[in-house]
Amino acid sequence: MKAWVPITSGLLAGFLAATISFGNFSSRTENKTVSGSTKSDAEKVYVPFGKQDEYYLFASGGHSGQMFIYGVPSMRHIRTVPVFSPDSATGYGFDEHSKKMMGDYTWGDLHHPAFSETNGDYDGKYMFATDVGNSRAAVMDLKTFTVKDIINVPNTSGPHCAAFVTENTEYLFLPTRFSVPLGSKYEPLDDYSKKYRGVMSAVTFDEKNTKLNIEYQVALPPWSYDLSDAGKKVSADWAVMTTYNTEEATTNLEINASQADRDYIVLFNWKELAKMVKDGQYEEIDGQKMIFPEKHKGGIYLVPVAKSPHGVDVTPDGKYFIASGKLAPALTVFSFEKAFKAIEHKEFAGDRNGIPILKYESVMEREVNPENALGPLHTQFDDQGMAYTTMFISSEVVKWDPKTGKTLDRVPVQYSPGHSVSAEGDTVSPDGKWLVALNKIAKDSYLSVGPSHPESMQLIDISGKMKVIQSVPVNPEPHYAQMIKADKIKTIEVYEKDEKNQNAIYKQEQAKIVRNGNKVDVYGIAMRSKFIFDVKSKRPDVIEVNEGDEVTIHLTNIDFDEDITHGFAINSYNLNIEVQPGQTNTVKFKADKAGTFPIYCTNFCSALHQEMTGYFLVKPKQ
Amino acid sequence: MKAWVPITSGLLAGFLAATISFGNFSSRTENKTVSGSTKSDAEKVYVPFGKQDEYYLFASGGHSGQMFIYGVPSMRHIRTVPVFSPDSATGYGFDEHSKKMMGDYTWGDLHHPAFSETNGDYDGKYMFATDVGNSRAAVMDLKTFTVKDIINVPNTSGPHCAAFVTENTEYLFLPTRFSVPLGSKYEPLDDYSKKYRGVMSAVTFDEKNTKLNIEYQVALPPWSYDLSDAGKKVSADWAVMTTYNTEEATTNLEINASQADRDYIVLFNWKELAKMVKDGQYEEIDGQKMIFPEKHKGGIYLVPVAKSPHGVDVTPDGKYFIASGKLAPALTVFSFEKAFKAIEHKEFAGDRNGIPILKYESVMEREVNPENALGPLHTQFDDQGMAYTTMFISSEVVKWDPKTGKTLDRVPVQYSPGHSVSAEGDTVSPDGKWLVALNKIAKDSYLSVGPSHPESMQLIDISGKMKVIQSVPVNPEPHYAQMIKADKIKTIEVYEKDEKNQNAIYKQEQAKIVRNGNKVDVYGIAMRSKFIFDVKSKRPDVIEVNEGDEVTIHLTNIDFDEDITHGFAINSYNLNIEVQPGQTNTVKFKADKAGTFPIYCTNFCSALHQEMTGYFLVKPKQ
Repeated sequence: MKAWVPITSGLLAGFLAATISFGNFSSRTENKTVSGSTKSDAEKVYVPFGKQDEYYLFASGGHSGQMFIYGVPSMRHIRTVPVFSPDSATGYGFDEHSKKMMGDYTWGDLHHPAFSETNGDYDGKYMFATDVGNSRAAVMDLKTFTVKDIINVPNTSGPHCAAFVTENTEYLFLPTRFSVPLGSKYEPLDDYSKKYRGVMSAVTFDEKNTKLNIEYQVALPPWSYDLSDAGKKVSADWAVMTTYNTEEATTNLEINASQADRDYIVLFNWKELAKMVKDGQYEEIDGQKMIFPEKHKGGIYLVPVAKSPHGVDVTPDGKYFIASGKLAPALTVFSFEKAFKAIEHKEFAGDRNGIPILKYESVMEREVNPENALGPLHTQFDDQGMAYTTMFISSEVVKWDPKTGKTLDRVPVQYSPGHSVSAEGDTVSPDGKWLVALNKIAKDSYLSVGPSHPESMQLIDISGKMKVIQSVPVNPEPHYAQMIKADKIKTIEVYEKDEKNQNAIYKQEQAKIVRNGNKVDVYGIAMRSKFIFDVKSKRPDVIEVNEGDEVTIHLTNIDFDEDITHGFAINSYNLNIEVQPGQTNTVKFKADKAGTFPIYCTNFCSALHQEMTGYFLVKPKQ
Repeated sequence: MKAWVPITSGLLAGFLAATISFGNFSSRTENKTVSGSTKSDAEKVYVPFGKQDEYYLFASGGHSGQMFIYGVPSMRHIRTVPVFSPDSATGYGFDEHSKKMMGDYTWGDLHHPAFSETNGDYDGKYMFATDVGNSRAAVMDLKTFTVKDIINVPNTSGPHCAAFVTENTEYLFLPTRFSVPLGSKYEPLDDYSKKYRGVMSAVTFDEKNTKLNIEYQVALPPWSYDLSDAGKKVSADWAVMTTYNTEEATTNLEINASQADRDYIVLFNWKELAKMVKDGQYEEIDGQKMIFPEKHKGGIYLVPVAKSPHGVDVTPDGKYFIASGKLAPALTVFSFEKAFKAIEHKEFAGDRNGIPILKYESVMEREVNPENALGPLHTQFDDQGMAYTTMFISSEVVKWDPKTGKTLDRVPVQYSPGHSVSAEGDTVSPDGKWLVALNKIAKDSYLSVGPSHPESMQLIDISGKMKVIQSVPVNPEPHYAQMIKADKIKTIEVYEKDEKNQNAIYKQEQAKIVRNGNKVDVYGIAMRSKFIFDVKSKRPDVIEVNEGDEVTIHLTNIDFDEDITHGFAINSYNLNIEVQPGQTNTVKFKADKAGTFPIYCTNFCSALHQEMTGYFLVKPKQ
C-alpha cells in the first residue's frame, strides 16, 4: 500500500489554490483550415439547422432539483425537465398530479442520473434520479420526458450514492451519504457510533404502473456512502460502493474524516440479499424490511481502499472495479474474480460492524499512478475498454489502460472536473467518440454573470488524441450525466385520446361547469385560439364562482398537433398549468380572493394567442 | 387605407396550418471551406475556450418567470437568473430577502426585458422586466445579476405592454394587456365598457436605493394594450403603445376582437402627464394618483392602425414609429413630426372615451407591403437605420428601408417568429451585425424531448445578405430579448465586507448561537471546507434546538475568492440558500420536525466539499 501518499488538508488547500489561481488556457482550441475530411473543432461541434445531434446528454441539475438535457456534439441546451422542484413554466408542482408527487417539498438536490438498462445497455425507456436534499427518488418516462413517480425514502438521509441500476433494471440502489438514527429520530451525537446508521435502499421499478417501490433496506455502519456502480456480466449479481468517514467523526469532517489511511469499498451480492429477505432474515423498521449485517450474515463485504474515495466504477467487461482516494494520487484496479475467490476461501482480515473485511492484497489487481496527477475522482470507459479518470486537483482528464496501468494520454480541463461522462459510458458497450468533463469551477471562461458563476462542461473528442473542442456554461450544478445514442429514445408527440379518463372531454359541446354546494368542477377545452369552459353560457370562456368556493378545473387540449401546447393561468391567482396536445390536466384551488381576474393562455400557440383569454369572476361574500 | 387586407380567422388558420405542416428546411446552413477571411457559419458562431462572446442576450423567460442569459454569437446558454419564480439552486425565494420580494407568489410570466438607458443607449447598469401573470415589475442589478426590487402594480392586470424605458430611464411604463375594474373588484362583464379599464402605470426607479415606485397611473379605455416603445431624440418626451379589442368584446376574442377594421396606437407625452399630476389633475384611487383622460385632458392621443397590431417600434433617429396589424399584410410608418403638427392644429377625427383621435392620413408617412409577407409582428433596426420585421405567418424576417418602404432582403426562419432582437437594437445607435429571431414553433428542429417542445432562437448574420447561421433550442418561453455589448456590463466577482451589516461576521471566533426564549439566532460562517455555527461548541458545525423553536440562520461566506460559492441545506427541511464569496444571507424557519437532520454545502466548493457538513438536531417536545 505504499503507493498511497495521503495529502494533508493543508497541502490540498495549496494545490487547490494553485489550480484556481493559475488555471491555464493552454488547451485553447484553435481552428484549423478544413482540408479533406479533417474538420476544424468548430465544424465538429456544429450541427446546422436540418440536422440533429448524435447523442442526448442527461445532466443532473444538482440543487436546481431538475434535469438538464443537452445535445452532443453541439452541446446545445435543449430542455430543463423539472423533477424535484416546481417549474413555473410547465406548471409542474401546480397541477394535481405533480403537486401530489412533490409532497411538501419545493426544493431538491438531484444527483446521479441513471438510464434504465436491458442486458447492460441503456434501453432509452426510463431515467432514474435521487434527491440528496430531501431523500427522494424519481423516475422519468422518456416517451414524454415527464416524471411519473417520486418516492420518499424513509430511515435515510441523502441518497447521494445513487442511482445506479443493475443490468436489467432489477434494482436501483440508494445508499445514503449521511448517517442518521433509524427513523431520523433525535439522538445525541455522542451516541453516533451506536445509534446512527447509513442505510441503503433496494428499490424496484414496476414498469406497468410506472411505480417505484422499496423492496428492502440494509442498515450499514454509520459512515458516509459516496458513489456506487452495479456489476456487469460476470459481476452482474454484485454492486460496489465507496465509503468515507469510516472514522465515524461527528464534527469537522474536513479534518476528522481524513485521519485513517484507508476507507472501504462495500461489495455486495444483491441476489443473496434478496434471498435473505425472502428467508425472513430482516427486521421490520418503520414499515421497511431492514437487514442488519451484524445479525443477518452474508452477501456484504468490505474492501480496503485509499482514504476518502469518491467514485467507484466497474469496467465494461464487468471484471474489475476501479476506485481512488481523492486525497491520494493513485488509483486501484480491483478484481471481482479475486474478490469472489477470497470470499469463497473466507480470507478475511477481521470485520467492521459484523461485515467481513477482505484483504487489500487479495482483491487488488494493480495500482495505477499517473505522474503528477492529483485528486482522481471518477472513471469512464471507451469502446476499447480504456479508462478516463478526472483529476480534480490537477484539473485534467487522464486516459489509461486498466489492463496495464499505463498512462496513454492526458488533457487539461478548465477547471476542477468532478465527474465526466463518455458516450454510453456506463454500459457493457461504451461508444467512445465523446467524453464530457463536468467542471466545478468556470472562473472567467464565459461572460461574467456576477459573483455566482455557471459551472462548465467541456466536450472532449476522444476519437484520437484527446482534445477539448467545446466549452459550455451550465446552470448549477451537474454532478453526473449520462449520454445516450439519440435514436434509442422514442418520444411521443401527441397524447392519445383517453376515453377512460373521466376528467377528459374532447368535444366543445361537452364543456361544462358543475356545481355541488361550494365545490365547482370545470370540464374545459383549450384549442387554437380559445378556452371553452361552459358551452351553454353566453360567455363560454368565463368562469364565475363565489368567494370561498373550491374550484377544480380539468382542461383538455384538443389540438392533436405536434408542438401546439396551451397554458392556463389566472391572473393574480398564482397558478399556471400546461396542457400538451391531447393531454388533460387538473388544477385545484380555493377562490379566496373576490374580484375580476383574467384567464389567459401562457404558451404561445397561434397568431391569435393573445386573444386566447377569458375571465375568472369571484363574487364577494355578502 | 386600401393596403389593409384583413385576414379572416379561417383564412389565417389555413395559413397557419400550411406553415406548420410544410415548414421547410430550405435555409439549411452548409459549411463552406475556409478561404482567406471568409469563415464558415460554424466558425462564425464558434467561441473557443479562452475567448468570450461579443454580446449578452437577455431573453425573457416567459412563464418560467425567469431571465435567460445567452452569449452571442455562440448562442450558449450562460445562466438562468430567477426573477418572478423561486429557484431551488440559488435559494431565491427561500432566503429572507428574496422571500419577502416574492410575496405570496411562486409563479410568474416574465415578458419584455428592458435595459436601463443613458442618452438613449443601454448603460449596462440595470435590467427591468414585468410579470404578466401576477402584475408585478422587477429590477435586476447587473453588477451581481440579482433582483433588487419587485413591486406589485395595483389596479391593473397583466403589464404585458412593458417594460420600455425612456432615454434616460426617467420612467418605465407598464400598460396592461387585460382590462379589469379598478382595484380588480368584482363587476359583471355586462358592465365591461362602463366599469373596466386598461390602466397604465408610470414607474420611476430610485437608483440610490434600488427601489421601483409608481408615480402615477392612467385609466385608459377598456381595451387590451399589447406592446409599446419610448420615443427617442425628437420624440424623447413621447411614447407609443398598441391596442387591440377596441371592440370591447367580453368573450371569444379570437373572433370578436377582430371585427373592426382598425385599432389604435396610443401616443402620449409623459412630460405633459407628469405636469398634470403635479398640477393635481388626477384622482386618488387605491393609494394611486390616477389620471382619467375623459376628465383630465391633454397629453394622450389615438392614431388609427390596421386591426390587432402587435409591436410598435420607434426608429433609432426617433422620427418614426412603425406598426402593423398582425392580421394584415401591410406595415405602416408613422411620422412623429406629422403627429405633433396634427396635435398642434387640433386636426382630430372625434374621440374615444375622451381621447382625441388623430386622422390616419395626417400621421401616416408610408404604407409598406412586402410581397406575400404575412403576420408582421415586430421590427428591429440596424446601424444603417434599416428595419427588420418578423412575419409570424410566413415564417420569415423581412429587411426593408423605412425611408422608401422598399423590401431589401428576406430570410426564412423555423418557425413562426414572434419578436426578434438586433444588437443594441432598441437604442439610438444599433450595432447591426446580429439579429436573433425568437421562434414560437420548433417542430423537429432539435432532438425530441416529448410532446412539450423547446422554443427556438436563430442567429442571423445581418452583416451582408441575411443568413441563419445558428439555431438553438430554448426553454419556454422567450417573448422578447435585448442584446448588449459585452463590455458594457461590469460585474463584481466578490461581495465587499459590509461592516455595518449586523448579520455578518467575518471571523471564525465570532460564530455564535444566541437563544432568546424560543427564538434561536445563528451567526455562522461558511468557508472551504466547513461550517462554523458556534465556535465555542465541541462540535462547531452542529446546531441543536428544541422542537417548535423559531430558527434564524445568518451565514457569511468568508472565502473572498472568485467562484467559491457555498450552499447551505438542511436535509428534509426543504430549504437551501447560497452565499456568494463575501456575502451574508439569512434564512428563517420553524423547527417543526423533531429528529436528526444533516446540514451540508450544496454548491461544490473544494476537493473536501463532501466533508462540508454538520447536523441540525431538534430535540422533541417532552
